[in-house]
Amino acid sequence: VFRPKSADHLALSELGRRIEAPPISWLMSTALAHPHLISLAAGFTDNPSLPVAEARALFEELLGSSADGQAALQYGTTSGDPQLRELTSRRLGELDESADSGLYDPDRMLLTNGSQQLLYMVTEALCDPGDIVLVEDPTYFVYLGILQSFGVRARGVRMEKEGLDTGQLERVLEEMCRSGQIKRLKFLYLVSYHQNPTGATTSLERKAAALEILGRYEKAAGHRIYLLEDAAYRELRFQGSPIRSALALKHGNSRVIYAGTYSKPFATGTRVGFGLLPEPVFTAVWRIKGNHDFGSSHLLQKLLARALSSGVYEEHLAALRARYQAKARVMLEALEEHFPPGADWWTPQGGLYYWARLPGKRAAGPRSAFFKRALAKDVLYVPGELCYADDPARKKPAHEMRLSFGAASEANIREGIRRLGEAMKV
Amino acid sequence: VFRPKSADHLALSELGRRIEAPPISWLMSTALAHPHLISLAAGFTDNPSLPVAEARALFEELLGSSADGQAALQYGTTSGDPQLRELTSRRLGELDESADSGLYDPDRMLLTNGSQQLLYMVTEALCDPGDIVLVEDPTYFVYLGILQSFGVRARGVRMEKEGLDTGQLERVLEEMCRSGQIKRLKFLYLVSYHQNPTGATTSLERKAAALEILGRYEKAAGHRIYLLEDAAYRELRFQGSPIRSALALKHGNSRVIYAGTYSKPFATGTRVGFGLLPEPVFTAVWRIKGNHDFGSSHLLQKLLARALSSGVYEEHLAALRARYQAKARVMLEALEEHFPPGADWWTPQGGLYYWARLPGKRAAGPRSAFFKRALAKDVLYVPGELCYADDPARKKPAHEMRLSFGAASEANIREGIRRLGEAMKV
Repeated sequence: VFRPKSADHLALSELGRRIEAPPISWLMSTALAHPHLISLAAGFTDNPSLPVAEARALFEELLGSSADGQAALQYGTTSGDPQLRELTSRRLGELDESADSGLYDPDRMLLTNGSQQLLYMVTEALCDPGDIVLVEDPTYFVYLGILQSFGVRARGVRMEKEGLDTGQLERVLEEMCRSGQIKRLKFLYLVSYHQNPTGATTSLERKAAALEILGRYEKAAGHRIYLLEDAAYRELRFQGSPIRSALALKHGNSRVIYAGTYSKPFATGTRVGFGLLPEPVFTAVWRIKGNHDFGSSHLLQKLLARALSSGVYEEHLAALRARYQAKARVMLEALEEHFPPGADWWTPQGGLYYWARLPGKRAAGPRSAFFKRALAKDVLYVPGELCYADDPARKKPAHEMRLSFGAASEANIREGIRRLGEAMKV
Repeated sequence: VFRPKSADHLALSELGRRIEAPPISWLMSTALAHPHLISLAAGFTDNPSLPVAEARALFEELLGSSADGQAALQYGTTSGDPQLRELTSRRLGELDESADSGLYDPDRMLLTNGSQQLLYMVTEALCDPGDIVLVEDPTYFVYLGILQSFGVRARGVRMEKEGLDTGQLERVLEEMCRSGQIKRLKFLYLVSYHQNPTGATTSLERKAAALEILGRYEKAAGHRIYLLEDAAYRELRFQGSPIRSALALKHGNSRVIYAGTYSKPFATGTRVGFGLLPEPVFTAVWRIKGNHDFGSSHLLQKLLARALSSGVYEEHLAALRARYQAKARVMLEALEEHFPPGADWWTPQGGLYYWARLPGKRAAGPRSAFFKRALAKDVLYVPGELCYADDPARKKPAHEMRLSFGAASEANIREGIRRLGEAMKV
């Protein structure tokens, strides 16, 4: 249907002609074609743990008073509900164990349609075609799609078990200086907690190092080089110690753009995300938000504000963490039992994903024999290949898989991993 | 704070540097500085008529079953809930009194964050900087902001009481052919029902003429010239006969992009809009939507689906129409009583706005003596000037006002108009 070279397409903009089909549509049509599929691919959250009764009670309260109800059902503002921004500011301060409330100024905060919209608008505000963004190698594949649509080049910086390889970050920047590309570099996109797809978390030390390194190259770049910290999975930690955000670091309030969300920890169907942005990015993104939709649903913001202020959010989150911890353990046990020697994986401390490798670096990509065998056994995973930028500096690794324990039941996690293990034994 | 020429701004994209402050922020800060203000400026809907009890009952049902509740609180799809698309398709067919259900194919439909997001994405999919979009003269000022941010030139086509002046449309196109600008023309943006800001409705005959005229110039343009029909106020008709959409016209399914919304007729705080788009625009916009937010809040879509299928929506709409009819009558009576001879206005058959002119074409712009006198009397209106594109082909008319009866109470409508009338008598 979509043939970018036909005459019909001459009316499209450059972006409209450039934008490619997202991997997600391929994954979804694959899933649809296999109705009995066990999907370890979906980034959906756990269905049975969604807060149905809680949301019902919150709406009952919220819509129980006509003053509150009318306010919630009326337009809000472009930045979003002041109460929810205030609560978010306080919450960020608590998560960062920071006494400096100025770091989390609600006036530099925007409430968005999931954190995804914030990522999009930040990219709009900072990037022209031909610009460069550094991403983890591998990274969140939907974000790679955003960069692709804007004609922005992505360069990868290796991801290790401990997070971003800051030594490689420096080497990449050095090389960009030599080639002159540094002038086109706008920011480093970092999924800092329980990353999608690897589950790895970048330590505070590494974040500090990254921020310091980026700062040193600003002169060569001729402009700020921001750190865009995507903390989407931050609240889904079920092991290990909390880690502060880059906002709490030196220069954090002028160089860090922070993207967070309430959707994943509370209910994905509500799509309430937020961002904290330094000037002039805040103003540019606020204006863009005005054009996108002049503010997200006020009703959902009021729901989240009430969930937070009543303690319902915190209580739900504790239960959710315990649940994901249990599901992660189930997947780990299955991996240990069913994957053959030579297969390998990273064990996350939170989030929704394991990152696994086939024995002997055998291929796991969308066209690989292994992927087809897995599908024949009715199991779907996200081929790791999809999570790597088109970076000419290296060949795309093709022997990895993202395995999600978010949506599948415990029984399906066990059975799915068992079948994948079998598919490896051929 | 936002100084696009400072060194800080060098990291911004062209769009990030170009995008201007929206008039809405000026209007809102003016309102905030006058706490006792009667605002006839706000495009908000009527607070007391918001469906608080209805929404509460709908949520109680929706979240009363754990299966339905979980589905609603989970991610949906990029296009949006199939049930709501199906219901929307059926509803459009009914509004158009059309038996041809193929015209309203749910597979070409997208559910969006208000219809605003659809307008934004369509512009992204079709326009590059330097391209041209035809708009009504005057038009919806937030849409002018979208065009400005993309560096798209807007050209105005005169709006009459009966809607778009199609004679002038043809003359503008003729002139664009002569100047070669026609090659940059992408579409005509038409707020076809009870237009913002004039309240005027473009008749079906005029829509047919416009579509036919645009079609004749496609050869000169070298590509399709779409009609983007913004039907945001369609359901708020309280007088006159229903008018079919341009979708029902010849070539409607290949040349018309239709933007609609459930927010204004039901509850603005829910922000559920929709679009029906021909290929290849559909696919491009669907991909863009995937990058913006990979789908609007599933919970709100499920709320609207239930409102529609239960009949609650239709019942609420009937009451809302009656209420706006009453408020429009109050404003009319006040205009007749308080505005001096020589002042003039258009009387709408629906929507939220009167369009009024000062006697003797005296200035009503943001810096005019009249605007200041009105503000000194604690009344705010939208200066008509803000609703005109920066079109070099004519001087911006500056003697008009948009007067909204949406948000203000009946008492405030009367009092506000009385004070405006007084301010005219100086």
